[in-house]
Formats: sequence, C-alpha cells, structure tokens
Amino acid sequence: MNTKAKTAISPTRAEDYPEWYQQVIKGADLAENSPVRGCMVIKPWGYALWENMQRGLDKMFKATGHQNAYFPLFIPMSFLEKEAQHVEGFAKECAVVTHHRLEPDPETGGLRPAGPLEEPLIVRPTSETIIGAMYAKWVQSYRDLPILINQWANVVRWEMRTRLFLRTAEFLWQEGHTVHATREEAIEETYKMLDVYADFAENYMAVPVIRGEKTAGERFPGADITVSIEAMMQDRKALQAGTSHFLGQNFSRAQEIKFQDRDGEIAFAWTTSWGVSTRLVGALIMTHADDDGMVLPPKLAPAHAVILPIYRDETQREAVLEYCRQLQQELSTQAYAGRAVEVELDDRDLRGGDKKWFHVKRGVPLRIEIGPKDIAKNAVFVARRDTKEQQSLARNELVSGFIGLLDSIQRNLFDRAKQMQVQHTRVIKTEAEFRDFFTPANAESPEAHGGFALCHFHSEESVQPLLDELKVTIRCIPLANNDQPGICFMTGKAAEKQAVFAKAY
Amino acid sequence: MNTKAKTAISPTRAEDYPEWYQQVIKGADLAENSPVRGCMVIKPWGYALWENMQRGLDKMFKATGHQNAYFPLFIPMSFLEKEAQHVEGFAKECAVVTHHRLEPDPETGGLRPAGPLEEPLIVRPTSETIIGAMYAKWVQSYRDLPILINQWANVVRWEMRTRLFLRTAEFLWQEGHTVHATREEAIEETYKMLDVYADFAENYMAVPVIRGEKTAGERFPGADITVSIEAMMQDRKALQAGTSHFLGQNFSRAQEIKFQDRDGEIAFAWTTSWGVSTRLVGALIMTHADDDGMVLPPKLAPAHAVILPIYRDETQREAVLEYCRQLQQELSTQAYAGRAVEVELDDRDLRGGDKKWFHVKRGVPLRIEIGPKDIAKNAVFVARRDTKEQQSLARNELVSGFIGLLDSIQRNLFDRAKQMQVQHTRVIKTEAEFRDFFTPANAESPEAHGGFALCHFHSEESVQPLLDELKVTIRCIPLANNDQPGICFMTGKAAEKQAVFAKAY
Repeated sequence: MNTKAKTAISPTRAEDYPEWYQQVIKGADLAENSPVRGCMVIKPWGYALWENMQRGLDKMFKATGHQNAYFPLFIPMSFLEKEAQHVEGFAKECAVVTHHRLEPDPETGGLRPAGPLEEPLIVRPTSETIIGAMYAKWVQSYRDLPILINQWANVVRWEMRTRLFLRTAEFLWQEGHTVHATREEAIEETYKMLDVYADFAENYMAVPVIRGEKTAGERFPGADITVSIEAMMQDRKALQAGTSHFLGQNFSRAQEIKFQDRDGEIAFAWTTSWGVSTRLVGALIMTHADDDGMVLPPKLAPAHAVILPIYRDETQREAVLEYCRQLQQELSTQAYAGRAVEVELDDRDLRGGDKKWFHVKRGVPLRIEIGPKDIAKNAVFVARRDTKEQQSLARNELVSGFIGLLDSIQRNLFDRAKQMQVQHTRVIKTEAEFRDFFTPANAESPEAHGGFALCHFHSEESVQPLLDELKVTIRCIPLANNDQPGICFMTGKAAEKQAVFAKAY
Repeated sequence: MNTKAKTAISPTRAEDYPEWYQQVIKGADLAENSPVRGCMVIKPWGYALWENMQRGLDKMFKATGHQNAYFPLFIPMSFLEKEAQHVEGFAKECAVVTHHRLEPDPETGGLRPAGPLEEPLIVRPTSETIIGAMYAKWVQSYRDLPILINQWANVVRWEMRTRLFLRTAEFLWQEGHTVHATREEAIEETYKMLDVYADFAENYMAVPVIRGEKTAGERFPGADITVSIEAMMQDRKALQAGTSHFLGQNFSRAQEIKFQDRDGEIAFAWTTSWGVSTRLVGALIMTHADDDGMVLPPKLAPAHAVILPIYRDETQREAVLEYCRQLQQELSTQAYAGRAVEVELDDRDLRGGDKKWFHVKRGVPLRIEIGPKDIAKNAVFVARRDTKEQQSLARNELVSGFIGLLDSIQRNLFDRAKQMQVQHTRVIKTEAEFRDFFTPANAESPEAHGGFALCHFHSEESVQPLLDELKVTIRCIPLANNDQPGICFMTGKAAEKQAVFAKAY
C-alpha cells in the first residue's frame, strides 16, 4: 500500500467537515449550485447515482404491491387551508404562483408578471392535499381499497439555509400515499414501508440505520405517528434518511375520503404517506466518503470499475486497448445485485496521475490499470477504493473473483459504518454525562464530538430546555430492544422508553 | 370471431371522435383531469405506459452517448429576457412565482401570499435558458465539448384549451440539450435525434411517421432549424410527435457559451435541443385505439397478457388457479424486446363479462381464458386485442409461440397504421383539389375528411391565407423522396420542394 501525506480533498474531514463535504461533491462532480436561489443542478455522475437509487427503491415498492402515478405540481391555496396542522407546517416556506403570463414592462424595458390568477397556486411541498382530493373521488366502497400509489416527483420548500443534497429549495423524491379501510392495516403499511427504507439503506446504500418513532414535537404536520430511519454521519451527527407517516383519519376527514364498508356504513378511510429524497445522496457521501473523495457502494455505483490503459506510444496503444476492451466486455457479461456490471474504459488523453485521481474522487469501487508489462504476464493491477488496497491479479482471477470483490467492498463499507455508529453510541444516565457527551473537547474541532446518546427520558417538555441549550434533538424512540423501563436522565423520574438523542442535519 | 353491435366505447370514432378519445382514456383508466386548471393526473396504467416509453427512449439516448442530469424547475425572469424570439414564444403562457410563503389573511380568515420575491421566477416551459446558463460556466475549452445531456422533467405552459395528454398545462417530457464545437456537428446531432425519435415511434409505438423540416413560421422560438416527426391520427389529422432543434449560435450568444478552440481563438458554441412528451401517449391512443377502447403495442404494454381463470365453485377454483399460475410463471421467464414478459392473473371477484371488457378497454395485447374444460384438454383460449381473433391453442403451442404472437401484434399495428397513412396521403397539384380534400363531404361528421396533402409550394406567404381559411397547417417539408422540383399548387410558380399539409393537433 502506498501512503501519502497529501489528500485529494482539501480540507480533510478533521480540518473542516462542512467544507470537506462541499469539496467531495465538487471533486466527484455530483452537483453544483445554480443561479436560482437554493436550487441545485444534479450533474450526470450524481444523477446516475440517484437513478440507481430510484431503480432499487422502485423495485421494492412494486414488490410490496405499489404502483406509480403522477399528480399535479400545483396545489390550490385553499387545499392547504383544510388541514390545520399541515398549513402550519408548510405555509411558511412555499413557492406561490400568482400570475400566468409575462408582459413587456414599459418602465424597465423588461418583463413583468401579468394575468393574475383568481386563486394562487402553491408549488407542491408535499402532495397529501392534492392527492387526497383525487382519492376522495376514487374511493367509494371498501372494494376500492386499499389504494397503494407512489409518485416520483420534484417538490419545493423555500428553505433559507441550503446545502447541496441535504437541504435544497427544490429536491427530487418519491412520496407514497396509501388509503386503507382499517386503522390496523394503515399502521401495518406505515411500518412496512419503514422496513423497506431500512432494508434499502442498509443493503443498497451500506448505511446502518436505527428505526424509531418520532416524538410528538418531531412528527410530520398532520400525522398521528411518524417513524423514521436515522443514520450517523462521520461527524457523529444524525441524518434522518426516510420517514413514514400514519396519518390516521386527519386527512380523510379534512378531504372527505369516505367509503361504504362491508356493512353498508359510511366511514372515513385511514391514510399513510412515506418518502425519501435526494437527501439520501448526502447521507451516502457523509457516511462513506473519505479524505480522497467519494466512495461508492458497488450496488449503487454508476460504474463498478474503471479500466485505465497505460502505454507510452502508438505502437503499444492498440495492443493495450484491445486487451482492455476484451476485459471490459468479459466483465460486463456478469451481473451484480440485479444489474449488469458496468465497466468504464478511460482512454482520455490525460496524465496518468490526473486520471487516477479523477476516478478516486468519483468513488469508483475498483480501478484496474493495465500496461504492456501486465499484459505480458496476463495480469492486471487492481486497486480497491474503500481500503485503498492494491494488488496484481492474474486476469482470470480478476474475472472469476470480480463479483466477490464487489461484494466484499459492499460489506466492508457497511461494517465500517456500523462500527463507527456503535463506537459513538452511548447509553447515558445523567445530565452531567449528557452535557459532557455533547460538548466539544476541543474548540478547534467543533464537529468531532458526541454521537448517539441512548437515554431513558420522562417527557419531551422536561428535556427540551437542555436540548435547546446544547443544540441536540430527540431523533427517535428506537423500535428494537427498547422494552426495559429506566430512570429519566434529566428528572430522575421513571421512564418507559429510551430515545436516541443527537445533533442532527 | 364474435360480432356485436354494441361497442365498449360510446360514442364511436365515427360518431364523435374527440369525445371517443376522452372515453377511451376513461375506459382504460389512463388519466383524468385534476382540480388544478389544465393539469392532469396520470393514473397507474397510463403512468406504467409512460415509464415503458421512458425506458425505451432512455436506452436509445444512452446508446447515442447522452447522459441524464437535472436542472432547476425555476427560471429567473431575467433569463427569459435574453433571447428575444424565445421570450416572444414562451412569455405569453407561463406560471409566475412571485412570493415565497403564505400568511394568515385577517380579511378572509384564510391564507394570502407573502414574502414577495425580488425577481419573479418562471416555472420552466422549456429549459434552454437555465441549462444554457450552466453550460456557459462548464464550457471553457474545445476539450469540454461536446456536452450531451438529457433531462426527464415536468414543464408548465399555461394553455387555455387543454386536452388530456395532448395539451395540458403541466406535462412530463424529456429535453436534450447539447453543445458542440462546430456547426456541422450540431446539425448532425439535430438530425440524429430526429432519427432516434422516428425509430422509437415506428419500432416501439408502431406509429409510422414522416420526418421533415419545419417552415420558418413553425420553428421553435430561437431555432435556426426545427425538424419534427409527424404522425397521422385516425381522424386523419396530423400530430407532431417529437421535435429536434438546431439552435445555431442564438442561445450561445445570448448566454455567452464560449470556448477556446484548437487554435486558441474564442468562439461561440453551437447548441441543439430536442424533446418528446407525454403527448406521445395521446398519439398512441389516437393511432391504435378502436371502438372497444385502448389497443397497446406489445413493446410498450405494461402487461403483455392477462389470464382470466374461469370456474364455478371452490372445488374448481384451486385447480384452475394453480394451472393459471404455472402458465403465468412459465410465460414470464421469456423476454420480449428487452423486457421480461409481464402476465397478469386476474382473479378478482367480478362477473366474467365485466372482467373481459375491463381488459379489452385497457388494451392488453392478449387475453387468455382458462376453465376446467380447457385444462382437461391441456388447452387455452386466446384472444388478440388488435384483430379480435380468438382461438383455442394447445398450452405448449401458446408457450412456444408467445413471443411470435406478440411480434405479430406489434407488426400488425404498425402495418394497419401505415396503411391508413398511405391511404389518406395524396399528392395534390391544384388549389381546387386542395380545397376539396380539406372540406368535409358531410357536415354530420366534420372530422373524418382530409389527411396529408403532399404539395409543391412556392412560399409560406403565398399559401397562408388559404391555410388560415381551411384551418390547415404546413406540417413539414419531408426529408425523404423530396428532390424533384415541381409547380406550386397555389401560385403555379416553380417550387423546389413538397410539403405535407394537414389539419393538426
């Protein structure tokens, strides 16, 4: 293994984590800011990653009986007014369409809005209200239920402070919206989709997550139960990576989603909604990337490997390229995790070092370098992006072991992230210990402290002042291994459950 | 073959073509209007069809070297002002965002827009300007070219008269935007993508098209050359199914997309854009559907076949279902046109007739009915949606001939549509004949007349008054078989080329 003092990304994680994050995105050419405030441009490498995420999730949604559909981008203002909590949650940050054309402005010589709308339209921040209005028409009888629909769409929330992938005014996501005849079935759906998200996070993204229920203060506006998956980033902060909501009858009452049940009685339906977004790309970066840039889990990588041909002159060139092309083709006949293996062959006219670092920064799982000497031995030089291990392999060994190698990288990324999560998760029983855990030891490096504090707590109210002071939030009440009552770390009172406390994105 | 007087769709095409179109969409449950003016809801069966179109096109785009990316939904008003013709074309019908939150309205007790934006934002009607602004940053040197990017997105054009799929305020589409170092390369790209569209229309959609160039009056606002594919619907009107634009240096000058060429000189780049939309679903319906509803080409059908189990009681039920499931599974191991065969098994508790017509109206290519008597003979009853032919086939015969059957349906649909197009395309040499061709013979049935008139013409100006009178447009100047000069049908002057004239959607 080669060791080197300089890193491809500057600053490093330890030096300045937020700036490192921006530089990883830049180095991998995943996205960049646009001239439109808070809106990002997702560049081809970042978009291909999102497409692979979509493909993986979409398959899981369909396997659990869901279908895709598409609903309008715009929501009439009056629809938002119907569900009181929902208004509260979304009215403060939305794009409002008030006109339907532009006309010449004699004053400026430019254009000005014209054709005022009778009723303003909101660009959807989420689609419960517009989809609910359609469901109210579609649902008449218990025979029409359940409705199990998902939508892939763009949504807009007028965020004041934005950060690429993590928080942008416009983002891409999927939103599932289901309707059920019974409370039990809707609750089952809510947890089923949480499990789908956890499965995707752990088995595709290689990001370990904690499944849990949100406290009342952290629920989706209008939900009776919100459950989420929470992941630990490398700065030990939490990132909410997906949410699933049991909406009770709140939206069905507001929107009159009613049906005739088996006994001929008219009843309000029970609804759920659930979503993940391009935020997952942010989670992926902050879980796996290192000081040399992006590190992609093979199951989602747009390219599993890149072949770099090495030659000095034209006479060497054709033979080397031919060898590389054959290897590329042979590897591409294999499949990994339900997708044909994709191998890039990079024959651009760049300096070897530049080319190598280009792919390191993009996070391609395997780099394969092949020159005349390798060909003479029928061997190839292979470097793993995750561990940086490098070795010479017989060509056949690479071909036969290729899927195993990808799988080993996929597992290693998960194990590494899991180890990080376990290492920085601590059961905390006193306020002093809690304060200590969330207070940086060293003012130079304010980000690298804390983690997940697992604490019994009595009530949201009793801990809120301390949380506000330390900028910590209750992430969730974990669903697993959480049956033992204990003592509240703040009040000393009896407490039934533990919660995960953390600083968060 | 069974014959019947009643049709599943009422009115029929002959009775009221526009209303028939709406009823086919309703009968197949493809889409419906939403409470938001001009915006449609694409329902699961319609969306699955669009997803199959996307998959087919996306593969072709990637095979021609394009990558996907995503750009912002919003365009600052000042961006539209930069390209004069472009403003002219799009400013009259766009959604304008002027505020970024809602606040309680003390007067009404409801909400009102608040937080006025410094500069209004337009919901993209097309993305040349916002994408161009990014390209101006990305393109510095000839080494950065070409840029070959496509985007799948929603766009909004504030149409006054809307019709499901054909013309809606919001629609889904793809827009390719490319940048080239030379004029020749950009023109080559423009025609290459037109060929991709024609290939997709004919070989996936089974819709025969004419490739041609638009006259100046019909060009995309800001383009030097617009080429399109034009299809003939069953009412003999033309539908523009895809366009590709050579934008010259118009946008690169307006947006400063400049690069240093091989000689070190700074030059403006050459750009193209090209797009198809959910309008293609409308084209599919109006080309293939009949008086019993939708007819889907197998290459795009969300389900290739549906199996309907037939039984009288519970004792028969399990044996029939088991037989059906095995057949379903066996058929599903095959692949057609690069996609695994999808077979539905419909065991819903519905009357047999209702169930049959449900699938007829949805346009599933093959309907397979299986009851105890069929099982006794190891045979199945198979009905083709396109020809309505019905026959009993040995089970093995169905399995081994399944792909052939799909292919025969796919070809038949194309041939039928081609025959229709040829039959109603006429070379016309005089104004009298032209008038006659485009004037309904029978006032009762105003839609069923005309077709494509192939005419030599001298200039747009010379024919415009007649076209306005007859509500006919110049669809395109065909690229193929159009080298013979002739005489203008209006003016009698010498004319170099023929154009296709038609009434159009």
